[in-house]
Amino acid sequence: MDNKAFFDLVYGVCMLSTKYEDKINGCIINTCVQVANEPARLAISCINGNLTPELIKKSGIFTLSVLDSTVTFDVFKRFGLQSGRDVDKFEGIDHLLDEQGLPYLAEHADAMFSCKVVSSQDLGSHTLFIGEVLDAKVLSPEPPVTYGEYHSRIKPKPQTVEQKKIKGWKCSICGYEYEGETLPEDFMCPWCSHPASDFEPIYE
Amino acid sequence: MDNKAFFDLVYGVCMLSTKYEDKINGCIINTCVQVANEPARLAISCINGNLTPELIKKSGIFTLSVLDSTVTFDVFKRFGLQSGRDVDKFEGIDHLLDEQGLPYLAEHADAMFSCKVVSSQDLGSHTLFIGEVLDAKVLSPEPPVTYGEYHSRIKPKPQTVEQKKIKGWKCSICGYEYEGETLPEDFMCPWCSHPASDFEPIYE
Repeated sequence: MDNKAFFDLVYGVCMLSTKYEDKINGCIINTCVQVANEPARLAISCINGNLTPELIKKSGIFTLSVLDSTVTFDVFKRFGLQSGRDVDKFEGIDHLLDEQGLPYLAEHADAMFSCKVVSSQDLGSHTLFIGEVLDAKVLSPEPPVTYGEYHSRIKPKPQTVEQKKIKGWKCSICGYEYEGETLPEDFMCPWCSHPASDFEPIYE
Repeated sequence: MDNKAFFDLVYGVCMLSTKYEDKINGCIINTCVQVANEPARLAISCINGNLTPELIKKSGIFTLSVLDSTVTFDVFKRFGLQSGRDVDKFEGIDHLLDEQGLPYLAEHADAMFSCKVVSSQDLGSHTLFIGEVLDAKVLSPEPPVTYGEYHSRIKPKPQTVEQKKIKGWKCSICGYEYEGETLPEDFMCPWCSHPASDFEPIYE
């Protein structure tokens, strides 16, 4: 099996939110498709262990903000790269409340769907929820963002950090060489008496 | 509820195929997402009543050809706009067989997945199948096509058909006018005796 084939599937990206008792939370998912009509139902799949699906199992309701092409990495960092167990993910970000009292994004979303869970299926690594759509709104004229665009355009590229290791320091005045990674702050050149600030690193 | 919101969901497009006894068939679907890992499982949703899901319910196996950006409208016409009850959809199109003996596309697909059904759920209008992935291959370096691109770029634009209604026929030889939508094939001009083939339509 060639696992690279899975990268050829197309996904959109949503911020999935819910509320149980006083706790509101949201996360990023890339699996939201309409699976049936009359009534319209959406399927979403969420990683087990994450807080949002745990809360959805108790609340039985969820809301989706479909991310549009204006979305920035900050939204992914906020909802996707930290846990609602540690922080309030909605603090300091513009959001609205739907009729269920669930938050959805006021910016960077082109549509929202308010849903109630009609079935769920534990698939081991994930839980698949099917939600009946109770309300739907168009929020912006921007096109939706794809998961491919997130990877190619939005997610920061890993930077090539030059891993230079310092093996010594050289006096830029007289050329004296000090052996060792760390030059003491109060070091003075034994040849020309210039201070540590006149030394430059020698790399391996 | 604003139904236009549903157009803001992102989908890829696949040709879904199966085989039961001697009948192979395939159709176009826009709902295929990976919903779980270890083992990898895909969810697909199919319209009830169509032949392909009916065959999948009996065979318990299916294969997906993920359509890539080179796909033409012919593929959609072949697999999406006719029924396998009337035609053999695979006749005259290049295809390969996977280890289950199911056909997948030799062109216009960037990946394929061979799956066995591990669960199905009747949702009224559609059936949701979850398939465990038994094999996966990358087939082309082209990017996958999105359902949005199908609508914006691949599907022919509706043409303005002039709905002209014929109210009569005029003899092009002598100008005699016949009243009525249909000119009998054996009609002869009462003025000049020329045949029906010399008459031209008069539009409303």
